[in-house]
Amino acid sequence: MYIERITSEGLSHHSYFISKGDQAVVIDPKRDIDTYLELEKRHQCKISKILETHRNEDYVVGSKALQNFTEADILHGQQLDFAYGTPVKADDFFEVDNLRFSVVETPGHTPESLTFTLSDLDFSQSPLMAFVGDSLFVGDTGRTDLWGEEHEAAGTLYDSLVNKILPLGDHALLYPAHGGGSVCGGAIAERNQSTIGYERRFNPKLAAADREKFIAMKAKEQHVQPPYFKRMEDWNKRGSAPIFQLPPMLEPLSAGAVNERVSQGQKVIDLRTPQAFAAAHIPGSINVWLAGLSGYFGWFAPLDESVTVVLPERASLDSVSRQIHRLGFDNVSGFLKGGFETWQNENHELHSFQSIDTSQVAKLMQRDDVQILDVRKPGEWAEGSIEDSRKIFVGDLPTRLSDLDKSTRYICMCSVGHRGGIAASILSRAGFPHVYNYLGGYTAWQKRHNQSRRAA
Amino acid sequence: MYIERITSEGLSHHSYFISKGDQAVVIDPKRDIDTYLELEKRHQCKISKILETHRNEDYVVGSKALQNFTEADILHGQQLDFAYGTPVKADDFFEVDNLRFSVVETPGHTPESLTFTLSDLDFSQSPLMAFVGDSLFVGDTGRTDLWGEEHEAAGTLYDSLVNKILPLGDHALLYPAHGGGSVCGGAIAERNQSTIGYERRFNPKLAAADREKFIAMKAKEQHVQPPYFKRMEDWNKRGSAPIFQLPPMLEPLSAGAVNERVSQGQKVIDLRTPQAFAAAHIPGSINVWLAGLSGYFGWFAPLDESVTVVLPERASLDSVSRQIHRLGFDNVSGFLKGGFETWQNENHELHSFQSIDTSQVAKLMQRDDVQILDVRKPGEWAEGSIEDSRKIFVGDLPTRLSDLDKSTRYICMCSVGHRGGIAASILSRAGFPHVYNYLGGYTAWQKRHNQSRRAA
Amino acid sequence: MYIERITSEGLSHHSYFISKGDQAVVIDPKRDIDTYLELEKRHQCKISKILETHRNEDYVVGSKALQNFTEADILHGQQLDFAYGTPVKADDFFEVDNLRFSVVETPGHTPESLTFTLSDLDFSQSPLMAFVGDSLFVGDTGRTDLWGEEHEAAGTLYDSLVNKILPLGDHALLYPAHGGGSVCGGAIAERNQSTIGYERRFNPKLAAADREKFIAMKAKEQHVQPPYFKRMEDWNKRGSAPIFQLPPMLEPLSAGAVNERVSQGQKVIDLRTPQAFAAAHIPGSINVWLAGLSGYFGWFAPLDESVTVVLPERASLDSVSRQIHRLGFDNVSGFLKGGFETWQNENHELHSFQSIDTSQVAKLMQRDDVQILDVRKPGEWAEGSIEDSRKIFVGDLPTRLSDLDKSTRYICMCSVGHRGGIAASILSRAGFPHVYNYLGGYTAWQKRHNQSRRAA
Amino acid sequence: MYIERITSEGLSHHSYFISKGDQAVVIDPKRDIDTYLELEKRHQCKISKILETHRNEDYVVGSKALQNFTEADILHGQQLDFAYGTPVKADDFFEVDNLRFSVVETPGHTPESLTFTLSDLDFSQSPLMAFVGDSLFVGDTGRTDLWGEEHEAAGTLYDSLVNKILPLGDHALLYPAHGGGSVCGGAIAERNQSTIGYERRFNPKLAAADREKFIAMKAKEQHVQPPYFKRMEDWNKRGSAPIFQLPPMLEPLSAGAVNERVSQGQKVIDLRTPQAFAAAHIPGSINVWLAGLSGYFGWFAPLDESVTVVLPERASLDSVSRQIHRLGFDNVSGFLKGGFETWQNENHELHSFQSIDTSQVAKLMQRDDVQILDVRKPGEWAEGSIEDSRKIFVGDLPTRLSDLDKSTRYICMCSVGHRGGIAASILSRAGFPHVYNYLGGYTAWQKRHNQSRRAA
Repeated sequence: MYIERITSEGLSHHSYFISKGDQAVVIDPKRDIDTYLELEKRHQCKISKILETHRNEDYVVGSKALQNFTEADILHGQQLDFAYGTPVKADDFFEVDNLRFSVVETPGHTPESLTFTLSDLDFSQSPLMAFVGDSLFVGDTGRTDLWGEEHEAAGTLYDSLVNKILPLGDHALLYPAHGGGSVCGGAIAERNQSTIGYERRFNPKLAAADREKFIAMKAKEQHVQPPYFKRMEDWNKRGSAPIFQLPPMLEPLSAGAVNERVSQGQKVIDLRTPQAFAAAHIPGSINVWLAGLSGYFGWFAPLDESVTVVLPERASLDSVSRQIHRLGFDNVSGFLKGGFETWQNENHELHSFQSIDTSQVAKLMQRDDVQILDVRKPGEWAEGSIEDSRKIFVGDLPTRLSDLDKSTRYICMCSVGHRGGIAASILSRAGFPHVYNYLGGYTAWQKRHNQSRRAA
Repeated sequence: MYIERITSEGLSHHSYFISKGDQAVVIDPKRDIDTYLELEKRHQCKISKILETHRNEDYVVGSKALQNFTEADILHGQQLDFAYGTPVKADDFFEVDNLRFSVVETPGHTPESLTFTLSDLDFSQSPLMAFVGDSLFVGDTGRTDLWGEEHEAAGTLYDSLVNKILPLGDHALLYPAHGGGSVCGGAIAERNQSTIGYERRFNPKLAAADREKFIAMKAKEQHVQPPYFKRMEDWNKRGSAPIFQLPPMLEPLSAGAVNERVSQGQKVIDLRTPQAFAAAHIPGSINVWLAGLSGYFGWFAPLDESVTVVLPERASLDSVSRQIHRLGFDNVSGFLKGGFETWQNENHELHSFQSIDTSQVAKLMQRDDVQILDVRKPGEWAEGSIEDSRKIFVGDLPTRLSDLDKSTRYICMCSVGHRGGIAASILSRAGFPHVYNYLGGYTAWQKRHNQSRRAA
Repeated sequence: MYIERITSEGLSHHSYFISKGDQAVVIDPKRDIDTYLELEKRHQCKISKILETHRNEDYVVGSKALQNFTEADILHGQQLDFAYGTPVKADDFFEVDNLRFSVVETPGHTPESLTFTLSDLDFSQSPLMAFVGDSLFVGDTGRTDLWGEEHEAAGTLYDSLVNKILPLGDHALLYPAHGGGSVCGGAIAERNQSTIGYERRFNPKLAAADREKFIAMKAKEQHVQPPYFKRMEDWNKRGSAPIFQLPPMLEPLSAGAVNERVSQGQKVIDLRTPQAFAAAHIPGSINVWLAGLSGYFGWFAPLDESVTVVLPERASLDSVSRQIHRLGFDNVSGFLKGGFETWQNENHELHSFQSIDTSQVAKLMQRDDVQILDVRKPGEWAEGSIEDSRKIFVGDLPTRLSDLDKSTRYICMCSVGHRGGIAASILSRAGFPHVYNYLGGYTAWQKRHNQSRRAA
Repeated sequence: MYIERITSEGLSHHSYFISKGDQAVVIDPKRDIDTYLELEKRHQCKISKILETHRNEDYVVGSKALQNFTEADILHGQQLDFAYGTPVKADDFFEVDNLRFSVVETPGHTPESLTFTLSDLDFSQSPLMAFVGDSLFVGDTGRTDLWGEEHEAAGTLYDSLVNKILPLGDHALLYPAHGGGSVCGGAIAERNQSTIGYERRFNPKLAAADREKFIAMKAKEQHVQPPYFKRMEDWNKRGSAPIFQLPPMLEPLSAGAVNERVSQGQKVIDLRTPQAFAAAHIPGSINVWLAGLSGYFGWFAPLDESVTVVLPERASLDSVSRQIHRLGFDNVSGFLKGGFETWQNENHELHSFQSIDTSQVAKLMQRDDVQILDVRKPGEWAEGSIEDSRKIFVGDLPTRLSDLDKSTRYICMCSVGHRGGIAASILSRAGFPHVYNYLGGYTAWQKRHNQSRRAA
């Protein structure tokens, strides 16, 4: 038996490739399915089954694309009217050599959510592994804000966890669909290894909770939903995403060509660090740091108009193309060939704003016209914030600009400075004359506070 | 937290590299330590601790070499008088960032055997992972034939398993020092994923056994010990193996140079398939198929004289060098550059013997001067054999040749034909005029038997 | 400027990827075009031109497939009525950044053959590089037996070489479409580096030849044409080969499934070494050693019926799939999963024949019923052969079997033993009871002869 | 014959690995010699000769280290009293299989400079390839400012080129020791492919020059010599560089540890882009952009004191370690683990300066207290500069600071903005209160000028 976890960087989405003998099973494939075709060749087998734990909302699922280039069946839950594949129900199973895959219905994250268990029949019919989708994560549980009434969803998830998943046994290995950093669970551990038993005992959402407490905790999570989620859900239900065998490549564009696009009103998203962006950028461009691409690009990229990206140095064009491809932004069509320097060396106009540290923030705050703009998530605000700061989640900023005042100097702040950079770029694009990005953000603020306290 | 399992191919030995923050820990390093230095660079950390679960006997442990190129401490058990490193005892622990490594004394496989547990202090002091060395494997338990009186060793191991390891909790992930195919446990599953709980419930050696039954089962295992084990134990206790940063490369030799070495009485070990070897080989050479190198090379290679190897097509010289390096055969010094074909094309003499299938075996057995020579292990004979076959384990064959009769035609047989090929090469080298290798071996024999039965 | 030579292993076909700025040019792409798409991404450019030096006959050209996944133009010669692309003529040129690609018409190998020159305009309009297709190789010149009357073709080629290619200048770097080992030029050096001047001075076909001598030399070359060449020529002219973005994978088959296919009369081609094959093989299978796949597979594989292959150990399924894909054998559909051993271990019947060395050959030749069957190429026979040997080129053997006598013992012989193995497998399949493969072949025979002479 | 060009990134230094049969030759090895040991394994051969075209001054040559891990001879010129290796003289040669390496004495760049030719004896004794060291480059010739009286050195080089190298033949392939971007020849083409004939005809230094013109041209080149060159020359002459098999790794340091080092006066060199650096950096740190590491690090790093580096995102620690290792800065000992962000998030102080574009420069220049500081090389000034700019080469800046006035606002300018970033960091470290880096630099300035002219 061979098992490989394929993690979509940025999304922290896990898919799984499991092979035995001449067959393989893929669970929750990502859209750039060449990865699985490559594994198929390396392991000299045929992908015969594609399992979907649920309809995903944060990325284009690759099931139909993968089916198009193999002869595999697609299996998924029966509670949703998928326009493709085969619905399965509790206790359905199939075998690949000595491995048995069985279906457990575990609604909660979504009504059609499934857990697939894998048993090694050489040892036992009892499950060795549990592929739980978005029901249970290492250190967290799945979101319940995506359908129906949240209390009902949370209760349903609790029942699935306690009555379906935990009973699989403490000894069963846990294989969830997301890892640390995913937008599908804010508190997922950055480690991937766990078991049902470890989660039963030490997962903060499960360990000390009864049904009521669990529902209350879920209600407090305050997740956010980027606008592209709707399209994903729809595509993934209808199986209607355009199909590719290899992810398409973005077109290389000269500085002149980008300038032309900009002058036609097209959007530029600059993937460099907030520091580099602050010092100099294409006027009007939006800054989404590279590691934040999967999490934040979808908030600021238009769904259909053409978009150009600026790559940081040493960024892999292939990796960037794949990340955007997975989010379904087939409209992102070009990148600035040669990087930002070609823009400056061609003598195109540069914009900038200031990056500041804690002592500069403190000094600025003595002015009357200065305000901290805290762009973290509601859940983060709840854990502490700077007095008198204005709170708008960065994803909401484009639609909340009219609430702000251009004569105010805004110090954009997030936890460390990445989302602050996005926010500053949005304000700058909107014509706010004085914007700052607070490098270090609330993390640095707290350190300073602690240092002062210790000094006192 | 990053964890990587590094498996020494052939040996099926697992070492582990675990890093967090700016430090890393290596457990049971192999001798070619450049692998860990490479990981250190990739993960931008410093190896600060090297853990030895026990003194290994089947390979040169790389602890001292790795220490030589880092500044790491070496920790191991106190029951053995190691000439290097720091002895630790039960409940000792150290921390790397939020990870705690703790010591559990688990004698049995050897008296000084340790289990190291890893806890993720962000969640619990309870162990998340157990690095159990050779105490417990996926589907098997460690050998107890290597020290003292076997009954005593088996009882000691049982106590460690039941009183020390199982109590770590069903939820704890299992990280043993060997996987399927190792000589350190004959029944290890080919799968690497398991938990303490899965083993507690489904490991055949543990699930239904009490202490007495366990000891009885262990006694039946009938392991074999290649002659090089003694040197390994000694080197690993004294830390006296020669140290290298990169494994040394074998010298390329022309067919003429190999011929010269052969004529001086040096040994040639031919790593091609038994089929290719049977058809044509260097007179006097011994055939150890490539995948069997780590398991069988040490039975037939002299400990100190120079040895030449013949590589199969597409074999990696690097991989072969490393495998031999790990076994401590620093005396293996050259390989036939260009492969076997250069030998034949240079018009050197070729020897051969016949490869036969089941029907040919059956036909030959009608002759009076034919005997099946079953070279499998005692444990395999116990599960069935061909009537009237002569049984000598292939590793014992060199010292048992005088028991055999050169006027007899020997059909060498193992489970499928690899060790049969070794055996046939040994007889051929010894001047037996009529030797055969039975391709398919006892596996094919049983199929035929079953087919006949079904037909009847 | 970035240039990469992409060599199709086995075929020794060279294609070239040249990029500058945001564009790239591909010359004579192979069919598995994902290689170029990968380079496009790595070099962050767009393939804008595909150049064909001529209609190829030994492999499926990838131009149309590559065009299908890019927006590139295809350029080729005007003397052939291609069903796709754009015809170009002498002195046409285009530029990519500071690189100028110019067309030189160099008929000879085929009437529409072109040479493309590349000039670095930063230095000179004079050519820096010459992409000469199959006109000129390192140490050889292109075949002239593929069209029209050979004397005419050879004369035409001579004129192109002397009047078009050599005048490009001694200093120009040579980039031919094939390297050592290709069937498109028997004497190509195994080295790839050369210049127009080096070939002018030291290429044996050019250095000391006038037009008449050149034609005479070409006439003596005696090339052979595998049956699949016709289909290639046709596909490549019409651009009608099926298009794939990634080469399709062969289906893994169990020993049982292969047995079933064999019993239905399907062909098996076994890619193991001649030694391994001789010792044991699937009855009726044909042996084409792996490195000979591109050169000899096309002689023995049926064009349309399904074929199964047996892979040697450590062979890359990806590499084998690609090689077969390039030859256009889309009908090769399966491989024996797990390799030959699964066949023997499942107790299926094994056939074998003997592999012999020179002294065994000499001894056998004393019998009346023994004959050497020399299956080398006509050009090789011309350089020497064994007295009284029977000469049939291995590619002609299937259609010449009726010329042979089943009561004769045939010693199959080629230069070293690979094609001898093919021949022995063909005779064996045809029911010849006594066949041998001479390992070392004519190479070993000559060594022995030389040794005898020196001894005398 | 296998040949591979190994280019040391940054240095643009080319070494060559050439193998045939069971031997290999390495020409001008870099210090991190594991690359060659790896090639040795991959090509299954032994490195038997190490050739040095001359004593290098810009990097630690790896000859003695490579010899230490092989059994190779080191060959070099006899005009210098090397403390190791074997001196060779004109017409000496050795053979590896059918390849002949011959010595041509080509003084000029240095007195002991050699050219090694390679002939393919299967074709001719005439050279196929010329390994010319630093005598001749693609589009340029070697420096002659490093020894003796420059006119004499230039004349000597001219004689070697015209009387020794060009006579090797137009057809010979050129393999120089440096490519585009090297400090050893300012005008080297970025392309690596050339021939003796192409250079004879189109190299601007050779094509239209007689001896006098050549000497005059060389005199005008105005090279610069970083301070570490002296140590390199000495080490390379004495063979006294410390020897490593694998390049040592830098130590990961926390932000706190770096802060401690900084407070003790240790230097920090920050390898991020000038944009990112300008926005925020560790107070007192020097900015050398990553691609400029090999060229500029050696100007600003102390030779013996400990140094810490800050890596940009996605920089390879291995690559950075190797580059520093090649320059001999064994004193660079640590890097900021986790990158610059850990510094800011730990709330350490940030410094910054402004990055400005052309229109901002133009506006600033209207002030009286503003001056352009042009830090390009003398040879670049000669091709044009901004009126009234102050000219100090960036490498000389640390020793020329007293010539500058802290009350002046300096706009640091180079060709595009990298060296301007270095300069601004030096001024900033020295306490100049108002410094700017001109992004786009003289390149952008000229574009704007041209745009204005066209507009006019």
